[in-house]
Amino acid sequence: MIGSGVYPMEKITSRSNEKIKYASALLSASKRRECGEFLLEGARLCSDAAQSGVEIVRAFFTADALSRYGEYISVISAVCKECCEIDSGISGRLSDTENTQGVFCVCKMRDASAVPLKKGGRYLMLENVQDPSNTGAIFRTCEALGIDALILSGGCDIYNPKALRAAMGSSLRMDVIFAADPVSYIESNSGSAVFLACVPSADARDITQALKDCGERATVCVLGNEGAGLTGEVISACGERVTIPMKGRAESLNVSVAAAIAAWESVK
Amino acid sequence: MIGSGVYPMEKITSRSNEKIKYASALLSASKRRECGEFLLEGARLCSDAAQSGVEIVRAFFTADALSRYGEYISVISAVCKECCEIDSGISGRLSDTENTQGVFCVCKMRDASAVPLKKGGRYLMLENVQDPSNTGAIFRTCEALGIDALILSGGCDIYNPKALRAAMGSSLRMDVIFAADPVSYIESNSGSAVFLACVPSADARDITQALKDCGERATVCVLGNEGAGLTGEVISACGERVTIPMKGRAESLNVSVAAAIAAWESVK
Repeated sequence: MIGSGVYPMEKITSRSNEKIKYASALLSASKRRECGEFLLEGARLCSDAAQSGVEIVRAFFTADALSRYGEYISVISAVCKECCEIDSGISGRLSDTENTQGVFCVCKMRDASAVPLKKGGRYLMLENVQDPSNTGAIFRTCEALGIDALILSGGCDIYNPKALRAAMGSSLRMDVIFAADPVSYIESNSGSAVFLACVPSADARDITQALKDCGERATVCVLGNEGAGLTGEVISACGERVTIPMKGRAESLNVSVAAAIAAWESVK
Repeated sequence: MIGSGVYPMEKITSRSNEKIKYASALLSASKRRECGEFLLEGARLCSDAAQSGVEIVRAFFTADALSRYGEYISVISAVCKECCEIDSGISGRLSDTENTQGVFCVCKMRDASAVPLKKGGRYLMLENVQDPSNTGAIFRTCEALGIDALILSGGCDIYNPKALRAAMGSSLRMDVIFAADPVSYIESNSGSAVFLACVPSADARDITQALKDCGERATVCVLGNEGAGLTGEVISACGERVTIPMKGRAESLNVSVAAAIAAWESVK
């Protein structure tokens, strides 16, 4: 059995075990913020995290997972000192999915220190994107297209279980910059990058042309909340309002689609 | 009260009423195909359908909906001869959502007769896209960007409740072509349009360049299933394999993101 290198491991049979209670509590955003740790689920995703240098504090596997996902579990156990086998009945307390694979890792959040914006860099910034599936999908797209980093302002939670799943590991590999106050972030970085506020307004400038005119300067396309869009303060702080021209009767693009087109135009 | 013009209407209090049983049965794909009708949910979506010329056979509203969504309901009742008030307890039988608005319409499916591909037209074709949320999202994006029609092969169900919600009305307004056999559709239309098979392969041609070379000819970007991609038969039938160049470690784009970029490049 491929995963056999991980034995012997502690066996946990009680749902009220302290380690299980702690891991389960990390499904709440406030607990994650308080502890600086998060819970990751899924054989592939946990193995990706291990390979991406994410610090794994503790791992849990069901007996079924040990026999099914031995290859992934070997990768996880190579970097994680504390591996526990859990009863399958406990999975439900830790899982956010309908059909869990029975593989979970408690991980340390990434260092949130600011990455400096580099010359010619291509960035996206999200203000208050609410739906974790959108945040995750945007990471996946941005990594695939080659965006240099994502800048996130308050409200975008990359450690939400749905966001982690939709990102398929991208949010654990890509550079991330956390900007608690987006306006002051934009103001203090306007010297090194052009900030383009993406809005669904016919009178804003065509995004393709605006990006072309930025030449070698770093660019940051800034996208807002699903319902409310960008705040007026962030639009004012940006150098320019840009738009993806629309033709049909649909009123707007989903934010993850708008982000995909902005990312694509940025890197082309 | 704005919706008052719709009175008097039949009141339905029993969950086993024949009209309710029929409407509820339309939540199944096989029943929809058998009857050629589908169930639409939501005040805005049903009102959009009424304004788009969708034939509404019968409408159901809860008392709560009548007081909240009078403006939308006026639009619906203007084109629907049979409006029924239903007990709020019945909503659950008809609803596919967690928090229903209590507005439902039984509608006739659209005429599936083939629209001819026009010179300079820009089209997308989907082969076996499985996730109804993806199908719906692709409609929304394609309408917004100005794609002329979507061509669907077997497996893409636009009348699934999730697909209808994600499309936000676009699938009831845009031209749709149903191609039961995608290979024969491609072969019989290759004279009037260039078919480009979108694949995640580094050795395929850059989609931007390929579309540019099509000039005034109609173009059809063909996208495949979420997991399996396009079938070999469809790839062979297409004139060319094209790709969206990827740079990061992410292995692929979500199909709705790939469709968005293909649509964007097609109409630019």
